[in-house]
Amino acid sequence: MGDDHMRVGVEAAAAATVNDHSSSVDHRKEVDIYPLSCYYFGSKEAIVFKDETLSDRINRMKSNYAAYGLRTSVEAVILVELFKHPHLLLLQVRNSIFKLPGGRLRPGESDVDGLRRKLSRKLSASEDGNETEWEVGECLGMWWRHDFETLLYPYLPPSVKKPKECIKLFLVRLPESRKFIVPKNLKLLAVPLTQIHENHKTYGPIISGVPQLLSKFSINIIDT
Amino acid sequence: MGDDHMRVGVEAAAAATVNDHSSSVDHRKEVDIYPLSCYYFGSKEAIVFKDETLSDRINRMKSNYAAYGLRTSVEAVILVELFKHPHLLLLQVRNSIFKLPGGRLRPGESDVDGLRRKLSRKLSASEDGNETEWEVGECLGMWWRHDFETLLYPYLPPSVKKPKECIKLFLVRLPESRKFIVPKNLKLLAVPLTQIHENHKTYGPIISGVPQLLSKFSINIIDT
Repeated sequence: MGDDHMRVGVEAAAAATVNDHSSSVDHRKEVDIYPLSCYYFGSKEAIVFKDETLSDRINRMKSNYAAYGLRTSVEAVILVELFKHPHLLLLQVRNSIFKLPGGRLRPGESDVDGLRRKLSRKLSASEDGNETEWEVGECLGMWWRHDFETLLYPYLPPSVKKPKECIKLFLVRLPESRKFIVPKNLKLLAVPLTQIHENHKTYGPIISGVPQLLSKFSINIIDT
Repeated sequence: MGDDHMRVGVEAAAAATVNDHSSSVDHRKEVDIYPLSCYYFGSKEAIVFKDETLSDRINRMKSNYAAYGLRTSVEAVILVELFKHPHLLLLQVRNSIFKLPGGRLRPGESDVDGLRRKLSRKLSASEDGNETEWEVGECLGMWWRHDFETLLYPYLPPSVKKPKECIKLFLVRLPESRKFIVPKNLKLLAVPLTQIHENHKTYGPIISGVPQLLSKFSINIIDT
């Protein structure tokens, strides 16, 4: 999976599978969501986080960039239904930071493989073997860090020849049931889209823009 | 074009045409943009706007809703290149309000037909006959007005059974050359995405979110 050509192939195959579920041309404009009560939630051993200052983090990004080039992260937009409204699954770290589930790709790893690996690590019981159960759908948006010390933007100006980080958001459709097993030091939350929209202060620019990125889809609440 | 089935047909046909231009599976993730200097800009007679107060407007929306139901507007996201950066075409009304080109559908009119008609009215020389020259692409997002007096949101809560207005944004790809003929009382502007992003105060929530909606596309600047 180490080259661009293969990556496109993998994504195309995933798209074909999605379309096979329905004869409708517009299938990919729809998202079926299931009640939160369809899912089981458990916990597993804590994940070790690097406890570091902002300047440590910048130094780590710099040395990683020197070694591997552009840092690419992939994050999942996963929806469930609660009170008849779509809720976004978010992970909360240390009662403060909210994150979409996902993380950094390994060098040469494809977006889809990397996102499946990260979702299994943060949301499933076993780290290996069940990664393909995550149905990674279309890319919803991309955010770029133009330089180590700057914020993320949803565009790349021509003056930025060597961006330092790219974060890609993918829609991940859930099946009708699933066990979520979350590391003890993370909290998995379901937050209504109404609360997230334009709420930069609490959720940051990427998460608070997710309701807009989803707005072109028709979201079907499935009664089970 | 008065029923849903036909509308889906028209959109599917448009999508097929777009895909025929290239054998790449990922074609629809790309947008080719051309320098502003490729285009000719002229003016034509002013369009008459309804000069009304906010309460006049709400009353007009109410009586239109009673007669025709949900008001649906379609708006175009059109890009050109300037200083090697993508610029969004906006119409400015009375030196203050910025708008995406587009407008309200007639009862029973399809999204694509209505957007072509509105683009011809606001951006082309003749009102009829050349409407099909607008290549209306994918829907990027939708905004809903839940009630006459409320703002627009990119989602529809379950409590809102009868939304009053829906605004749909479509990507419209320009050809390599085009004459834009704009009513005298409107100004056509090309605004860089960098200036629009999160600039709610100047551009409002819909336009200021457009850079995010475009972020999943790879934008190719075509040298001519």
